[in-house]
Amino acid sequence: MKIDINVDMGESFGRYSLGDDEALFPYVTSANIATGFHAGDPNVLDRTIQWAKQYGVAVGAHIGLPDRQGFGRRQIDISPAELRADTLYQLGAMDAFLKIYGLKMQHVKPHGILYRMVGEQEKYIDAFLDTVEEYDRDLYIMLHSGCEALNRAKARGLKIAPEALIDLGYDENGNWMLERVKKSRSPEEVAARALGVAKDGKIDTVSGKRIAIDSCTVCIHGDAPNAADVAKAVRAALEENGVTPTNLDGYFA
Amino acid sequence: MKIDINVDMGESFGRYSLGDDEALFPYVTSANIATGFHAGDPNVLDRTIQWAKQYGVAVGAHIGLPDRQGFGRRQIDISPAELRADTLYQLGAMDAFLKIYGLKMQHVKPHGILYRMVGEQEKYIDAFLDTVEEYDRDLYIMLHSGCEALNRAKARGLKIAPEALIDLGYDENGNWMLERVKKSRSPEEVAARALGVAKDGKIDTVSGKRIAIDSCTVCIHGDAPNAADVAKAVRAALEENGVTPTNLDGYFA
Amino acid sequence: MKIDINVDMGESFGRYSLGDDEALFPYVTSANIATGFHAGDPNVLDRTIQWAKQYGVAVGAHIGLPDRQGFGRRQIDISPAELRADTLYQLGAMDAFLKIYGLKMQHVKPHGILYRMVGEQEKYIDAFLDTVEEYDRDLYIMLHSGCEALNRAKARGLKIAPEALIDLGYDENGNWMLERVKKSRSPEEVAARALGVAKDGKIDTVSGKRIAIDSCTVCIHGDAPNAADVAKAVRAALEENGVTPTNLDGYFA
Amino acid sequence: MKIDINVDMGESFGRYSLGDDEALFPYVTSANIATGFHAGDPNVLDRTIQWAKQYGVAVGAHIGLPDRQGFGRRQIDISPAELRADTLYQLGAMDAFLKIYGLKMQHVKPHGILYRMVGEQEKYIDAFLDTVEEYDRDLYIMLHSGCEALNRAKARGLKIAPEALIDLGYDENGNWMLERVKKSRSPEEVAARALGVAKDGKIDTVSGKRIAIDSCTVCIHGDAPNAADVAKAVRAALEENGVTPTNLDGYFA
Repeated sequence: MKIDINVDMGESFGRYSLGDDEALFPYVTSANIATGFHAGDPNVLDRTIQWAKQYGVAVGAHIGLPDRQGFGRRQIDISPAELRADTLYQLGAMDAFLKIYGLKMQHVKPHGILYRMVGEQEKYIDAFLDTVEEYDRDLYIMLHSGCEALNRAKARGLKIAPEALIDLGYDENGNWMLERVKKSRSPEEVAARALGVAKDGKIDTVSGKRIAIDSCTVCIHGDAPNAADVAKAVRAALEENGVTPTNLDGYFA
Repeated sequence: MKIDINVDMGESFGRYSLGDDEALFPYVTSANIATGFHAGDPNVLDRTIQWAKQYGVAVGAHIGLPDRQGFGRRQIDISPAELRADTLYQLGAMDAFLKIYGLKMQHVKPHGILYRMVGEQEKYIDAFLDTVEEYDRDLYIMLHSGCEALNRAKARGLKIAPEALIDLGYDENGNWMLERVKKSRSPEEVAARALGVAKDGKIDTVSGKRIAIDSCTVCIHGDAPNAADVAKAVRAALEENGVTPTNLDGYFA
Repeated sequence: MKIDINVDMGESFGRYSLGDDEALFPYVTSANIATGFHAGDPNVLDRTIQWAKQYGVAVGAHIGLPDRQGFGRRQIDISPAELRADTLYQLGAMDAFLKIYGLKMQHVKPHGILYRMVGEQEKYIDAFLDTVEEYDRDLYIMLHSGCEALNRAKARGLKIAPEALIDLGYDENGNWMLERVKKSRSPEEVAARALGVAKDGKIDTVSGKRIAIDSCTVCIHGDAPNAADVAKAVRAALEENGVTPTNLDGYFA
Repeated sequence: MKIDINVDMGESFGRYSLGDDEALFPYVTSANIATGFHAGDPNVLDRTIQWAKQYGVAVGAHIGLPDRQGFGRRQIDISPAELRADTLYQLGAMDAFLKIYGLKMQHVKPHGILYRMVGEQEKYIDAFLDTVEEYDRDLYIMLHSGCEALNRAKARGLKIAPEALIDLGYDENGNWMLERVKKSRSPEEVAARALGVAKDGKIDTVSGKRIAIDSCTVCIHGDAPNAADVAKAVRAALEENGVTPTNLDGYFA
C-alpha cells in the first residue's frame, strides 16, 4: 500500500518567513512550491527547490493569483485568458530553476481560492486544463478528489492526483473549510486521518461520520504552527502500518 | 553584408500601452520582449511572442529589475544572488510561452539600468554570466559593444551580440545617453547611422566625430513616438545599400 | 441652470501615460484623481493635483482596488474591513498633497469595478459609507444616480453627487456598459447628452428612448482617444445653452 | 532623567507576521509604524495604530522605499522628487488613520536604507527636510544622533529626535552595523546600553571602548526573536535606575 504526502512549501517572501520548510522536507514526498504570485519570490523558489533536490522530494508548481497581500485567498475575477497566461508564466519561472538543478516538474496544484476556481468554477476549468495540456501533458494535476476539473482531466487522458485534506474539517457532503490562519491540530488525529485515507479510502467528518474519498495523496498544510510535528506523525503512522510514502510517480508505478 | 535590427517590444502593461509593436515587427529581425519585471505582463508577453512568431522575428528575453514604477531605470542594489534568481525566473517565464509556440529563445538582453549593471559593474558581471551559462549556453548575450561583460563572455566561450544604439547620442569615448522619455529622431539620420555601423563599423558622436563600434546588431528604441517610421527607414536604407537584415543566427551563419 | 463636469485624471503610472490630463483640465470642473492603487503613483498624484490647482478644478479621490494590472476593473473579493482600510489609506495619501497645496478634497468616487461594489453590492455599501463618514462627513460621495449607496448616504445625511455617464450607452433600465478600452465618441453626441441631463434630467438609451436621470454632475471618461475634444464640446454646448459648468460646491450653493 | 524608547511596529503584511507588536507595546513610548511601502499594509496600519492608542504610545511614520521584497533595505536610486512624493504619500496615508482615532503624528523616521539615504546622502537630505517642513513643521525627525540631516534640521529650526541604536554594534567612529535578519541579544546587555545612553550619553563599541552619543531616544528592533524580552528589560532597568521612559513630547516638555 502506498500514498503520497504533499505539503505547501516556499511561501516565505523576502524578510517574511512562513512555514518551517526545512523541518518538513524529511517527512514529505511531494512539495507544492509557491511560484511567486501569491507567495514566494525568486530567491525563495531557488532555495526551496534546492532543498527538494537534497531531500529527494518531488516538486510541483503551487500556482496562485497575483495577490501577495491576500495570499491568493481573495477571488479575483480574472479572465480565462489571464488564467492561462498567469499559469504559463509561473510554470515557466519554476521550470528555469528545475532545469539548472536537473529536476523535472512532477505536478501542478493551484493555491488558495484558485484551487476552487479551477477545480469547480465553469469559467476556469477548461482554460486551466487546456493550459496544462499545451504546456506539459506529463504533469499531474493535483486537486481535490472528486472535483469537476479532475473528472474532465481524466476524460481528456491527463494525469490526475486527487487529494484528501487530512488536516481540515469535512462535512458530510465532502466539503472542507479553509482557515484564514492555520491552527495547530493534534498530530495523532491527523495521522489517523491519513491512515484512513490510505488504507480505507475514507475520511472522518466533523459530525463524526466517515465518508469515502479516493485519493493518491494527502495534504498537510505547512503553515500550521506545528506542521512539522504533524508531518512527522503522519509519516510514522503510515510506515508503522504498512503504507509506503511515495511521490506520484512511485504511487502510479 | 548583414546586420541584425533589434527593438524592445512587449512593454505594455495591463491597460497601459507603450510602443506600437505591431507596426514595428515588419521591420525588425530580433525582438527584445519584456519579461514582466520592469514592464510587460503575462498577457502582453503571450501576445507579443505570438506576433514575433507570425512575423518570423527572433525572440530575446528583455529582463529587468523588479520596478514597474521606475520602468527598470532606477538602480536597485540587489545582491548577485538576487540578480541570478530574478534572471532565472524571467528567462523561465518567457520560455513557457516559447515552448507552447514551438519557438526557441535567441538572446538575453538586460533592460534599462540593468544593462549597465551587468554590462559594467564588477559586482554583477560574473553573476550574470554564470546565470546565463548555467541556464542555456546557447543564448546570445546582447549588450553594448565593447563592454566588460561581453569581453568576459567571449573569453568564456559564450555567444555574444555586441550592439550599437543608433538612435542615442554618443560622446567621443563611446558613452551614450539614455533618455527618460524617448524623443522622436529623424528616421533618415538614424538610418544613416545604421548604415555606418553595418558597413563601416563606425558611429557618429554628438560632437561630429566618428568612432569605431564593432556590432552585429543595431538597436532602435520602440518607445519613441515615431519608432515605426524610424525602423522602416533603417530597414529600407540597409536593404537599398546591400546590407541584409537578419537575426543573430543568420548573422553568424 | 448649472452642472458639474467630472473627469478621471491622474491615471498615468511611471513611464506609462494614460489620458491627456493637461488638455482636459480647461474644460472640467471636478477631477477624479487616481490615488495610486489601480492607477497613478505618488509623482503623478502630485503633478495632477498641481494642475487642478492651477486650473481651479475641484479635486476628488478616485479610489480603486489594489490591482494595477487589472486597472481596478477585476472584482477582488476583499473584506469590508479591507475596503475600509484601503479607502482610508488612499484618502489620506491624497490629502497629504492637498494639504501642502492648500486645497480641500471635494469628493470621493470609486473607480472601475469598485464603483459597482460600493454602489450596489450589499457586502460593501455600508462599510464604504461608514468609512467616508468617519473620515470626513464633508466629502461628496460621487456614484451613479439612483444607486443604493446614494440612497443610503442621503438617508444618513451625507453629501451626495449623483452622476450621469454621458459617454456610455444606457439600456432602458438605466444600466450602462463599461468598455475595457474606451472608444472615441462623437463630441456632438456626448454634448447633446450632457445638455439633456442638465436641462431635462433625461438621457437617451441605446434603443432610442429617453429615461429620467437625476444628476448634479456628468462624467466624461478621460481615457477615450478624443476625450479632450469631447470635453471641449460638452463645455461649449452647456455654456451656449445657458448651463453654467460649476463644481459641486458651486452646484449646491 | 528621561528617555524615549522607540520600536519599529506594524511590519506584518497580509498573511505574514513579523514582530510581536502586542507584546512590545507595553514597554515602549514611541512606535515607528510602517506605512505600507517597505512593510505593513492598510489593515496592519489600522490595527497597529489602534494598539498604539490603547497603550498610550506615541505614533511615528516609519516611511520606506517602495520595495517589499527587499524590506526597504536595498538602495533604490530614486530622484529627490520621488523621495518627496513617496514621503508625502506615506505620511498622508498614516494620517488618515490617526485622524479617525483622534491621534496626532509625533515623528517621522525613515526605515532601512532610507535611514541612511536621507540621513547622510547629499542627494536626499534637503529634499527630505523640505518635505517634512512643508507637510508638518511640528513633526520630530528621528534619525541617528549626529547625522548630517539632523544637523541641518536643527539649523532650520525643525524638531529633531536623535537616537541611539542600543541593540546594534558600534565601532569607535560611531558607525553601526545593520543585520539582514535580526539576531537575539542579551536583554541585560541591551538594558545596560540603554542606561549608558540615558544617564551618561555614552554607548559601548564592539571593541570595548565607550563613545559619546547625544540621544533623546533609544531604539529597540522589534523583529529580533526576543524583542519583547529586551524591551521589558530595558524599561525595567531604566525605571529602577531613576530614568523615566517618556515619549518625545514628554522628553522635551
